[in-house]
Amino acid sequence: MRINAHALSLASTLHRSGKNPLSRSKTLTPLSFSTMAATTASSTHPPAAAAGAPAAPAAPAAPAAPAAPAGNVVSSAASREAFRQSVVNTLERRLFYIPSFKIYRGVAGLYDYGPPGCAVKSNVLSFWRQHFVLEEGMLEVDCPCVTPEVVLKASGHVDKFTDLMVKDEKTGTCYRADHLLKDHCKDKLENIANLTPEKVAELNHVIATLDDMSAEQLGAKIKEYDIKAPETNNPLSDPYPFNLMFQTSIGPTGLNTGYMRPETAQGIFVNFKDLYYYNGNKLPFAAAQIGQAFRNEISPRQGLLRVREFTLAEIEHFVDPEDKSHPKFSDVADLKFLMFPREEQLTGQSSMTLRLGDAVSNGTINNETLGYFIGRVYLFLTRLGIEKDRLRFRQHLPNEMAHYAADCWDAEIECSYGWIECVGIADRSAYDLKAHTEKSGVALVAAEKFAEPREVEKLVITPSKKDLGLAFKGNQKMVLEALDAMSEAEALEMKSKLESSGEAEFQVCTLNKTVTITNKMVSINKEKKKEHQRVFTPSVIEPSFGIGRIIYCLFEHCFYTRAGKTEDEQLNVFGFPSLVAPIKCTVFPLVKNEQFDAVARDISKALTASGISHIIDVTGNSIGKRYARTDEIGVPLAVTVDSTTTVTIRERDSKAQVRVNITEVASIVKKFVEGHSTWGDIQWDYPANHGTDENVPEENA
Amino acid sequence: MRINAHALSLASTLHRSGKNPLSRSKTLTPLSFSTMAATTASSTHPPAAAAGAPAAPAAPAAPAAPAAPAGNVVSSAASREAFRQSVVNTLERRLFYIPSFKIYRGVAGLYDYGPPGCAVKSNVLSFWRQHFVLEEGMLEVDCPCVTPEVVLKASGHVDKFTDLMVKDEKTGTCYRADHLLKDHCKDKLENIANLTPEKVAELNHVIATLDDMSAEQLGAKIKEYDIKAPETNNPLSDPYPFNLMFQTSIGPTGLNTGYMRPETAQGIFVNFKDLYYYNGNKLPFAAAQIGQAFRNEISPRQGLLRVREFTLAEIEHFVDPEDKSHPKFSDVADLKFLMFPREEQLTGQSSMTLRLGDAVSNGTINNETLGYFIGRVYLFLTRLGIEKDRLRFRQHLPNEMAHYAADCWDAEIECSYGWIECVGIADRSAYDLKAHTEKSGVALVAAEKFAEPREVEKLVITPSKKDLGLAFKGNQKMVLEALDAMSEAEALEMKSKLESSGEAEFQVCTLNKTVTITNKMVSINKEKKKEHQRVFTPSVIEPSFGIGRIIYCLFEHCFYTRAGKTEDEQLNVFGFPSLVAPIKCTVFPLVKNEQFDAVARDISKALTASGISHIIDVTGNSIGKRYARTDEIGVPLAVTVDSTTTVTIRERDSKAQVRVNITEVASIVKKFVEGHSTWGDIQWDYPANHGTDENVPEENA
Repeated sequence: MRINAHALSLASTLHRSGKNPLSRSKTLTPLSFSTMAATTASSTHPPAAAAGAPAAPAAPAAPAAPAAPAGNVVSSAASREAFRQSVVNTLERRLFYIPSFKIYRGVAGLYDYGPPGCAVKSNVLSFWRQHFVLEEGMLEVDCPCVTPEVVLKASGHVDKFTDLMVKDEKTGTCYRADHLLKDHCKDKLENIANLTPEKVAELNHVIATLDDMSAEQLGAKIKEYDIKAPETNNPLSDPYPFNLMFQTSIGPTGLNTGYMRPETAQGIFVNFKDLYYYNGNKLPFAAAQIGQAFRNEISPRQGLLRVREFTLAEIEHFVDPEDKSHPKFSDVADLKFLMFPREEQLTGQSSMTLRLGDAVSNGTINNETLGYFIGRVYLFLTRLGIEKDRLRFRQHLPNEMAHYAADCWDAEIECSYGWIECVGIADRSAYDLKAHTEKSGVALVAAEKFAEPREVEKLVITPSKKDLGLAFKGNQKMVLEALDAMSEAEALEMKSKLESSGEAEFQVCTLNKTVTITNKMVSINKEKKKEHQRVFTPSVIEPSFGIGRIIYCLFEHCFYTRAGKTEDEQLNVFGFPSLVAPIKCTVFPLVKNEQFDAVARDISKALTASGISHIIDVTGNSIGKRYARTDEIGVPLAVTVDSTTTVTIRERDSKAQVRVNITEVASIVKKFVEGHSTWGDIQWDYPANHGTDENVPEENA
Repeated sequence: MRINAHALSLASTLHRSGKNPLSRSKTLTPLSFSTMAATTASSTHPPAAAAGAPAAPAAPAAPAAPAAPAGNVVSSAASREAFRQSVVNTLERRLFYIPSFKIYRGVAGLYDYGPPGCAVKSNVLSFWRQHFVLEEGMLEVDCPCVTPEVVLKASGHVDKFTDLMVKDEKTGTCYRADHLLKDHCKDKLENIANLTPEKVAELNHVIATLDDMSAEQLGAKIKEYDIKAPETNNPLSDPYPFNLMFQTSIGPTGLNTGYMRPETAQGIFVNFKDLYYYNGNKLPFAAAQIGQAFRNEISPRQGLLRVREFTLAEIEHFVDPEDKSHPKFSDVADLKFLMFPREEQLTGQSSMTLRLGDAVSNGTINNETLGYFIGRVYLFLTRLGIEKDRLRFRQHLPNEMAHYAADCWDAEIECSYGWIECVGIADRSAYDLKAHTEKSGVALVAAEKFAEPREVEKLVITPSKKDLGLAFKGNQKMVLEALDAMSEAEALEMKSKLESSGEAEFQVCTLNKTVTITNKMVSINKEKKKEHQRVFTPSVIEPSFGIGRIIYCLFEHCFYTRAGKTEDEQLNVFGFPSLVAPIKCTVFPLVKNEQFDAVARDISKALTASGISHIIDVTGNSIGKRYARTDEIGVPLAVTVDSTTTVTIRERDSKAQVRVNITEVASIVKKFVEGHSTWGDIQWDYPANHGTDENVPEENA
């Protein structure tokens, strides 16, 4: 069974990830070309179903027909593409983001946030800190990106965080093997008119099972279909795994391998012991971290959605596996929103609105703590400005989850690329702490002290070394170890056999044979012991946020156009909530005039003192042009200085205006920006500015 | 002349950095073992002076006698060391920071910020954004850490960002060559009683000139002194340069070398064109960036001060080189603080308090913009809690600065390691933009449009190709190019020679000879031209902040101890200003009691709603112990719930208490924390809690 980083994020019909310790990292790699492809192509060629794969669901990262987009903006592949183009053009033109190192022709998968993008990001992260760290009293940590190999060996990334790659045998250009095969199949399905139904089924089956293919299987298919390098038509190498971590060397000797972390979570796990102590040796508690993570993608595509360096915000909530209740669950239990449970995916239904409390109480969501975080993530995303009906929580299918995971849900946001996994919320049980305990030899455990010592019955296995030695000689040690490693059930079974027949067959794996144990060789007895505490490895519930993806989806959800001066002219608007707006307010002197400039400067000073980010626009442009420019970067309020005593405040989305005293501007803006008053409140409190007033800064002037 | 990354940050008596394009990066590497050594050793062995080096100043990173520490806490090397130990013990015990990957025995030079440290860092960065980005309207950007080679080739880092290293020839262990030589000299000076005055002078001279030594010179000295590997006494290799950048490979081919950025500034420079456009093609403007930077130190020492990964906050203020005035300079002109100008360092005087306005007007500080940023940095650091008399601005000596730099000042903070360079404020002229213009071919320039076209006289050199061809045949091209490359002065000189004698001698470098030019071969004339704009490369003024160093110094400046219950018991206190305090307030129910717990929960809710970070301590510990624990992480206010109507608020430093209504707690705390009221105001407004009152939560209970 092939386990690769990419496979983690895509659905498949085979059980592939049952043994994959990296399933947790899926948040970070979800979107691939296939996602886009599926949303555009699936209506003509529903993938797995046609291939006759029995229980094959629609690809969950981008489900087919049942989960059609709810929004009205992106109704078809073509309009979706056009919509995306206008958003991206605006974002790039106004420097929300910039391809990194552009003057050197850039590097695929690396982007800079320019001034408005950087401000949006900073606002999103501040709100994340407020909403999660502060409100939940989490322990925030800040660990380095450079990570020594041993840590990522323990976590499984060194061995398994790979994608399968093929090389153009002549030029050395690298491709993702699964991408080439998928592109080939899709191309045939779309462009060859008279394919037999069998061929269609076969190609669809390949697409559906792609992520479960081993290197050998992928290589065989590539040979069978005679797939060549796309640009050169040269032959391709066999597929081989490529580790997605950026490797480096720590210190001057060249002997200590290090990697740039592929996620921030490991920094928290290795600190568990100290953090548990910091929390007064009490569970539950959560640690959190915001920071850069790195993935050396083979061929990054899709702009901000699949990049080589990105900001993650991760929470690790440690909890007693025997008690996953949450004291604040009732705060979120009444929330209702779109969920897409496993059952509905497997039976081809669509996502549906459920009450969170019900989803937990009927067992759809595994436990209260997981449910609590799902609710908190819902509140976080919608308060940022994500549309409610384009946000859903999709449960992982059994084959998507690691064997140790108790349950896992992704917050998926719909945008022009399809449904994008932006937050993963997983109950990872004790996997991570156990892996580091084993590798480091430091016990990452918690203890529940009993109020009174408890008497417990324990099964004690006492071997007789003399008799074992006589019977097994040189193999004695292996038999001893195997006896010691028996589970309680196995030991009880042996006990009853020894008692009934005096001997028992016993499989010793290390000897690769079955031996006979007699009742002289071992005694198995229940004994009573006093215990003062219960020592256990905590479970961890992990909400992991891909900040760049959330921001990109937010850009799409907030973007709209409206007619300008003429019907032909389309003006772009980012309707950001004030919380995330990169700049809260602009100040315009209506005409160039020393008195107005002085008023503008005074207002600016007052805004600065109130901590409100703002800009003064003193270009000689018409007021209409200035409004359009400020709407395009999503500034919620514009203050136009058109007298020396009162000014006009204009709201971005309604374009309505009120007239207020200069001295009140800063406090009005502050209240609005901090959410203590709405535009409706302001309109109630202050006189409207109507078109008849000669002082009104005209919208289309 | 050797140019290495380390040399940039240490003083020397030779002119070494005149050609060093990396002098800018000094903020990031300043502190070395030598700094500590110099402050402790210099009083017995004043370095350069004794060595008779003519103009040798005291090592400026840690000046000798003249600039003795101002604080009273660290009066001698021993008490300094003891003080540091108590600070560091407290910091580590309370998880302000943690050696990274501790359970795997850590990695030198990598540290995690634990919960209180992470909160302090987050507060420092928020305030930095408020104080610089928001108040100055800077354009903040956010660029990746992974950087392609070409960018760092242009900046000079690939070729010159190195330290000289030697290897133990048997074990392969690496050492900084200058460290070993310096340690050797210091050891001799300190431990050999009867050194001749000549020997003392020689050793001191070596220490003083260490940073200017070439690999060959260092190697020769190591041989001469027969220095061996410290742990093994094995022979050492010759010194060779080791590049301090973490290297990696971008993409799957292994052909594209990348580095983890050693500073954030390059990300801004390569975006200059877009940012200038974003700013309406107007100068001046500033861009800013906060982010991780990486340096693969050969042997990191001194805890948080020299690490392999750290957070930088950098500003690049772009300005017309012909106008470096600053409109807001008057806001800071009256500030008076410690400055250490070049002249005072060279003449062995100490730093002195100057008025910023005077320092600029008398030319000590090169220009208003540089002066403005020095003033703003002073305000930033002192508002954070850095002590005024342990902060100084030290001007670079001529030999410390790059040849292109106009002026450079470091904000140095005194701590137990000596004076630590925490912020560098440099006028780097046009160096960086020119380097990237040259390498990328993209002109990173600004233009000043003239209101009216200006008539300018230009010297036009018109060669006669025919005559040049006849005279120089195959060499014609080289002569032509040399003529074209003449400076205005050279051309004028040739013109006058041609006019007076009909011919002129002319040096053609590419031919490596002097040729004779006659007046038939070239005509040189002044012509009048109309110009509509002036195109120029902007100068950049760069304040660069080492956030980790500032935070470490802040820890030391805020730390103090006071007597506990008994005289022997010393309690630790971090007297952080509320601005940076990791937690603003604790809430304690005085005794375990359901009513008090409910009040505590209500207060907690109100604090959360006001965005105040706080913790509830419901341990059964005595109130005195709980106060001590909260003082030790620097929480400014403690709310003790000792009734169901009113509670006690206790201030950390004075230990004074007032009694307030439960409903008022959140607003009182918020006002205090945000700086809108002082503890004095609160004491004025609310009744004091005196020891006689039976409800008073006793300090030493």
